[in-house]
Amino acid sequence: MSPNVPPSIEQRTIAVIVDNEPGVLARVIGLFSGRGYNIESLTVTEVDPTMRLSRITIVTSGTPMVLEQIKAQLDRLVPVHGVSDLTQEGPHVDRELALVKVAGAGEKRVESLRIADVFRARVVDSSHEHFTFEISGNSSKLNAFIELMHPLGLIDVSRTGVVAIARGPKGLRRL
Amino acid sequence: MSPNVPPSIEQRTIAVIVDNEPGVLARVIGLFSGRGYNIESLTVTEVDPTMRLSRITIVTSGTPMVLEQIKAQLDRLVPVHGVSDLTQEGPHVDRELALVKVAGAGEKRVESLRIADVFRARVVDSSHEHFTFEISGNSSKLNAFIELMHPLGLIDVSRTGVVAIARGPKGLRRL
Repeated sequence: MSPNVPPSIEQRTIAVIVDNEPGVLARVIGLFSGRGYNIESLTVTEVDPTMRLSRITIVTSGTPMVLEQIKAQLDRLVPVHGVSDLTQEGPHVDRELALVKVAGAGEKRVESLRIADVFRARVVDSSHEHFTFEISGNSSKLNAFIELMHPLGLIDVSRTGVVAIARGPKGLRRL
Repeated sequence: MSPNVPPSIEQRTIAVIVDNEPGVLARVIGLFSGRGYNIESLTVTEVDPTMRLSRITIVTSGTPMVLEQIKAQLDRLVPVHGVSDLTQEGPHVDRELALVKVAGAGEKRVESLRIADVFRARVVDSSHEHFTFEISGNSSKLNAFIELMHPLGLIDVSRTGVVAIARGPKGLRRL
């Protein structure tokens, strides 16, 4: 490749099944941060308590070559039981959840409820001074909702980041 | 404290606002894994694209003394803009989202839809051989749903881990 042509940057959603043990997450993240790669979102929690396995979902962007290197290294880590590049392997469903706290009195209060209704967000906490909404969907839907809530008095946002699962009946590839 | 009395172990949900830069997540996680503390769940994603800030939500268990040490060290990390111990600071709302893929034919297929209806889970993908459900709620609700799906032919689970936000109109404490 000519040095004048910058390699294309791609966004990928990668799922990794690991033993739920201290230090495993740090090692997985180290493969990305060691290359200066930013993790755009990461979620990790135990999915199978009987087997003590956790699933890490990472959204990151980089050149295809480096992303393939990272995946190959993940494959070789001892506590890793499976790696899946959901972006590469075909269609998948991705979802995120957010809790969004909004202030506002009078007309603004009514407007925030109206928007929540359109986005199918649900009120999970409220007082005379605020609402907290729960909303789920893909990232762009959540971005749009949060952007609309900004001028109405956005107080606080807590987002999960992306989880994803392949379409169709197949499970995640295990090593 | 007498060496014969083991210190009590507490579970905490901690939210941290950080600069969205490579390496920050690794440093935050290092404070936990360096002490052999397991991270039960972690979510991180950008909450405010205009300010390039990410919010990390960590669920961990440990002795109150060590947890206070970790929080004090988080406070001193340069890319950290705010730390909140949601468990300590009063009532909060916590939520999680899961994508759950289930196989099953005939009666099992009907049964999985019946349970999904009770748990208000929604079908986000399906074929003649499977359903993928989206479900949100607190962790124990999700655990119960996944457990019920096991005998019906659980294929794959992807969970976000916990996000949390304080009840009432206040936002997260900023440094």
